[in-house]
Amino acid sequence: MKTGVIGLGAMGAGMALNLHRHGHLHRLYNRTAFRAEGLAAETGVARAMSMEELAADCELILISVSADQDVIDVVERIAPSVTADTIVVDTSTVSSETARKTAAILARSKADFLDAPVSGGVEGAAAGSLAMMVGGSAAVFARAHETLTAIAARIEHIGPTGSGQACKAVNQIMVAGINQAVTDALAFGACLGLNMDKVIEVIARGAAANWFLDHRGKTMLAGDYEKGFKVKLHHKDLLICTEMARNVNLPLPIIEATLRQYRRLMAEGQGEKDISALYRLKKTQE
Amino acid sequence: MKTGVIGLGAMGAGMALNLHRHGHLHRLYNRTAFRAEGLAAETGVARAMSMEELAADCELILISVSADQDVIDVVERIAPSVTADTIVVDTSTVSSETARKTAAILARSKADFLDAPVSGGVEGAAAGSLAMMVGGSAAVFARAHETLTAIAARIEHIGPTGSGQACKAVNQIMVAGINQAVTDALAFGACLGLNMDKVIEVIARGAAANWFLDHRGKTMLAGDYEKGFKVKLHHKDLLICTEMARNVNLPLPIIEATLRQYRRLMAEGQGEKDISALYRLKKTQE
Repeated sequence: MKTGVIGLGAMGAGMALNLHRHGHLHRLYNRTAFRAEGLAAETGVARAMSMEELAADCELILISVSADQDVIDVVERIAPSVTADTIVVDTSTVSSETARKTAAILARSKADFLDAPVSGGVEGAAAGSLAMMVGGSAAVFARAHETLTAIAARIEHIGPTGSGQACKAVNQIMVAGINQAVTDALAFGACLGLNMDKVIEVIARGAAANWFLDHRGKTMLAGDYEKGFKVKLHHKDLLICTEMARNVNLPLPIIEATLRQYRRLMAEGQGEKDISALYRLKKTQE
Repeated sequence: MKTGVIGLGAMGAGMALNLHRHGHLHRLYNRTAFRAEGLAAETGVARAMSMEELAADCELILISVSADQDVIDVVERIAPSVTADTIVVDTSTVSSETARKTAAILARSKADFLDAPVSGGVEGAAAGSLAMMVGGSAAVFARAHETLTAIAARIEHIGPTGSGQACKAVNQIMVAGINQAVTDALAFGACLGLNMDKVIEVIARGAAANWFLDHRGKTMLAGDYEKGFKVKLHHKDLLICTEMARNVNLPLPIIEATLRQYRRLMAEGQGEKDISALYRLKKTQE
């Protein structure tokens, strides 16, 4: 399917490259032009001069932006240019409500929509091995599926529009808790003076095994929080989660504590760092 | 090496069977005789009538019991029967201090000691795929290593006596945090009414991937907390951890909260259940 990508950050760029490897990438657009220019040069795929131009020329439009309002802005812009044959797939992490609004805006042009947030980090985006959780109609999911296999190793249709984002909220709560678990445990081991390289090697093979320890354990011990998932973005996601949790009367004290710690990191100018920067807060509590 | 196993609970029995498969198992002992009888019948390996008999007849003695005092009791009993050629390997999870006491008791008989707690659950014990974290001298570690490969896929020598247990404390803190992360997130998803089988399938492949979700996710959703790691044992381990953390002035609020929740489960008669029973507490908060 002729696919266009709007939003070429670390996640969007990785997905665009994998779509290109599978012969699907047809157009590129990014608000900041130089990112699109770089990828256009690398792939030979034409950069679109506007979102509207991209939308008019693609069968599948994949969006990868940061915040709820960004998604709404993009679909308001492209809605007049899409047709009944267009599928818009939003891989951003936003609220279920934003997903439903987005679908409604596109429905005016009779275009189809899938909310399809992903997990697996920038590594997963680069490798094409993301996990993708999809909300929308089963028929639209079936039409888009083959193209999406270029970017995700696991694609699950969760339910109607918005349920992909609800599933991602489950994921983001789990990631926050695991961040707490790993940073608490490694700060504890470091305070005891253990050889932490050896500790990580062995506990990563037992019942504490997890993706975050494998991918962020050694970097956090080294004080390297550059690559990964930004504190300010996880903070935004967790605000969505706590609002959803309040609606079902579920207390999430660990998530509330995580939000407070992330705000402390952001106040210290660490909002652009990977979420494993939580380790620094704990280590300096000593 | 002629190996005897003292303590044939779920973990000890799995380790004994794997030692047998590799031709190391020489003697079996359990306080409750029928467990030893069952394994003796299954393996054809002789059951010892007493710990002392086992100790006098084995080069490597592997201990798998529950509590600190149990370990001390066992080594007090076997110390008079061991020699300078004996290596005692304690796979129980106890404090570093207990490990050092144990080594001192055995040193009177010139026997060697390794603290070698394991992680990987009853599944890992059955499969011989445990992660083992070892404290003690490098020379003793080297002598015992080949035998221990029968039960563990990853064996790491962390440092001197007690450091195996310190590493296990890091592991247990991480496991507690991951239990919180997974039970919070799944309770949240269930409260939203999502198809949780699909949710688990997809988030288990992204950045939230972890052993606990893979091995306990579906059983906890089904309300099955029978198999696994007992609440009362993790409670005991976490008490050791919080004492160690106080000594290095590290606050562990999530572990303190976990201890309170485990005590509530124990008060409700759930102390023998798997630690994923925490899910029940959260789900019934609705």
